[in-house]
Amino acid sequence: MKKWKTLSSELVFNNKWFRIAKDKVRLPNGKIIDDYFSWKAKEVVWIVPVTTDKKLLLVKQYKHGVGEITIEYPGAIKEDSETPKECAIRELFEETGYTAGKVVYIGEYFESPTKSSCRGHLFVAIDCVKTGNQYLDETEDIEVLKANLNSVLEMIKNKEMKFTGSIAGTFLATKYLK
Amino acid sequence: MKKWKTLSSELVFNNKWFRIAKDKVRLPNGKIIDDYFSWKAKEVVWIVPVTTDKKLLLVKQYKHGVGEITIEYPGAIKEDSETPKECAIRELFEETGYTAGKVVYIGEYFESPTKSSCRGHLFVAIDCVKTGNQYLDETEDIEVLKANLNSVLEMIKNKEMKFTGSIAGTFLATKYLK
Repeated sequence: MKKWKTLSSELVFNNKWFRIAKDKVRLPNGKIIDDYFSWKAKEVVWIVPVTTDKKLLLVKQYKHGVGEITIEYPGAIKEDSETPKECAIRELFEETGYTAGKVVYIGEYFESPTKSSCRGHLFVAIDCVKTGNQYLDETEDIEVLKANLNSVLEMIKNKEMKFTGSIAGTFLATKYLK
Repeated sequence: MKKWKTLSSELVFNNKWFRIAKDKVRLPNGKIIDDYFSWKAKEVVWIVPVTTDKKLLLVKQYKHGVGEITIEYPGAIKEDSETPKECAIRELFEETGYTAGKVVYIGEYFESPTKSSCRGHLFVAIDCVKTGNQYLDETEDIEVLKANLNSVLEMIKNKEMKFTGSIAGTFLATKYLK
């Protein structure tokens, strides 16, 4: 099985927050597609925080993409100037006021591979303790929840946690909860 | 905790394949944001297919969004004219040539709630049997894989399966594999 070959690529929408590309591509069977549109997304970072007493930290906030109040783990768009791990440490503190004893890299995942280039870097933050207050910008209003694994599994079952990145993160982090 | 109020919304990029909106919104604290950009995505459907001998069916294909060959469960953008369940049944057959004895709705999930409106409807297709050949369009080249749960968990561990929707789907479907 072979990849498509990108013959040319043009940003047809491009500002600070969103970039859409129109690619001309050649398929392995020779067919040419003149206009394959996709979102050239920035990398994101997701953190599953586990406290010293083996509880998970969650953030409850309004997300305008879906227009709903969601429960997820902390996450952010990675700044160009930082590594994924630096972003994880920064964002965990900003959103929750907690600092981790150790930050473990789980891996890189895709949130929407057909139409978005987005890579999400998943970390588990172990031995988290509260070291300060949240540091939010003026558009953010985040409630921090602390729950054991069984409660989070209930949230998933009850559709209170609906973000696939957080659901996958829960299962990938379970070994750090024992 | 309150939602943001959308004061006005304009499609700043709009074609058959992609729609980007610029919203003017009022936050609960009174602050106005003039330009919140988000992807007005179509609903998608993900199917976790389980065969009569309790194997999972996977599809291996090139995804141009991420530029990689991926292993996922079957999935598709839902057509306006069909229900999520109709889409699941159609897409399962088209991508794999299998038909389910029963299709169970697991629920609605978000793939990227901050910047995308996308809702993904997750189904488990039980008692799948091969009833025909794949029915692919000329841009599709899909290899069907059949694996038991332990092999899929290995694929997740080895980063062969990197789509969070499929990883979450694997864990949410496990009770149908016993």
